[in-house]
Amino acid sequence: MIRSVFFVSDSTGVTAEGLGNSLLSQFGDITFRKNTEPYIDELDKAAALVDRINQAAEEDGQSPIIIDTIVNDDIRKIIAASKGFTIDIFGSFLAPLEQELGTHSSYSVGKSRPHAESEAYSNRMQAVHYALDADDGAKLNQYESADIILFGVSRSGKTPTCLYLGLQYGIYAANYPITEEDLESNQLPRALRAHKDKLFGLTIDPGRLSAIRQERRANSRYSSLIQCEDEVRQAEMMLRKHGITSINTTHFSVEEIAARILSETHISRRT
Amino acid sequence: MIRSVFFVSDSTGVTAEGLGNSLLSQFGDITFRKNTEPYIDELDKAAALVDRINQAAEEDGQSPIIIDTIVNDDIRKIIAASKGFTIDIFGSFLAPLEQELGTHSSYSVGKSRPHAESEAYSNRMQAVHYALDADDGAKLNQYESADIILFGVSRSGKTPTCLYLGLQYGIYAANYPITEEDLESNQLPRALRAHKDKLFGLTIDPGRLSAIRQERRANSRYSSLIQCEDEVRQAEMMLRKHGITSINTTHFSVEEIAARILSETHISRRT
Repeated sequence: MIRSVFFVSDSTGVTAEGLGNSLLSQFGDITFRKNTEPYIDELDKAAALVDRINQAAEEDGQSPIIIDTIVNDDIRKIIAASKGFTIDIFGSFLAPLEQELGTHSSYSVGKSRPHAESEAYSNRMQAVHYALDADDGAKLNQYESADIILFGVSRSGKTPTCLYLGLQYGIYAANYPITEEDLESNQLPRALRAHKDKLFGLTIDPGRLSAIRQERRANSRYSSLIQCEDEVRQAEMMLRKHGITSINTTHFSVEEIAARILSETHISRRT
Repeated sequence: MIRSVFFVSDSTGVTAEGLGNSLLSQFGDITFRKNTEPYIDELDKAAALVDRINQAAEEDGQSPIIIDTIVNDDIRKIIAASKGFTIDIFGSFLAPLEQELGTHSSYSVGKSRPHAESEAYSNRMQAVHYALDADDGAKLNQYESADIILFGVSRSGKTPTCLYLGLQYGIYAANYPITEEDLESNQLPRALRAHKDKLFGLTIDPGRLSAIRQERRANSRYSSLIQCEDEVRQAEMMLRKHGITSINTTHFSVEEIAARILSETHISRRT
């Protein structure tokens, strides 16, 4: 059984998608046909969308699910009059919030968008560029301005996590790619000694690491299980020896790795 | 007047933060003291959080606002019994969705997390690494596998947008950094001619570009208004001449640029 779903937003649709996917993931026995409809910020766009929703209703023989984060009341009413079943986020929560806060909502489209000229946004972009510049230890003197330095073997998740920490939270995250010499010496690499308090380790199960590396360089020494086992064992030994906090990334997405790092280290967001 | 806010989640808290910030941004006259509380996935963690919420209630002299995306009923009930005012996302919407869908929700913690071993997640990570490898035209032959190639002057937003398109949607986005020679010739760069249908232009107001470049290299020719004006004018001429769709990124965040690109081009997400 297939159900059409429409994530409807007057902005990017990222919040509607995120929340909608969370809700729908609780219904594992149903297959959803998902559509994201961003920038529904005018009455005629809403009317055109209603036509598509009603068409899907006819084709499916049942009501499409609508997850709706539209702020404007008039636009929302048009969507609500479609043949869809509407989960109306702002409609459900703004009125009780108004009452609790004792003030009126502005009901303004655009207020909820990340503001491209705000300081918080500028911090995020600078942190992304920082992560790129500092990637793979390219400029070691950049560790001075790092909020955190991720430490782990190749493909343990360092680079995507650094980028995500910058993009989502404005955090300056650098990473140190451990070399074979580092691993054999069991000494903290020279470039890191002055920044030991910023180090955070990422480790990973060797089997999973080998599978990830296969995607990059199939049938190489680099991706072989034995090589992955050696590197991970040595890296974990180094983490323990120097008392560096770490997490095992095997079953975690970048979103989860980032959230767990924040929750372990109490680094402040710059947003 | 300051109100404490708690974004409470059994997972990363990204959805609770996103939705919560959208809702709260509608109340511009109130200052919120925001706390994100991820991984509240056990009864004792919930009880400890309730203590902190009640302490904030006492200090503020009013109820903290709680934006809650917890799935588990028992944990949610503990939070709801705090002195906070709860916006309960799953509690509000799961029961009506169950009724509409004619089936029971699994109410399972973890179901809504991006699954690190899923194909969708693997696509996202591969797309991030693709964006990094293809950044600034480093490997021109990678344009073959690009879903889209962003085209614009330095600091028009190409790189963060490519990374975001990869991270959020699993889209393979490359970018081409226009050189001064390209601009003067008004010819489409050789490397791009075979991929004209994948090109998408990013343009920007020269004043804003100059301000962004100042942050990178202050008082340089690169960041001067006159240089920015010249480059933008020539780049826009090239976009027009070759009929390349483009957007002006001046007032847009990466989230918005990405959503608008998807909505203009109808590229499919790989997620």
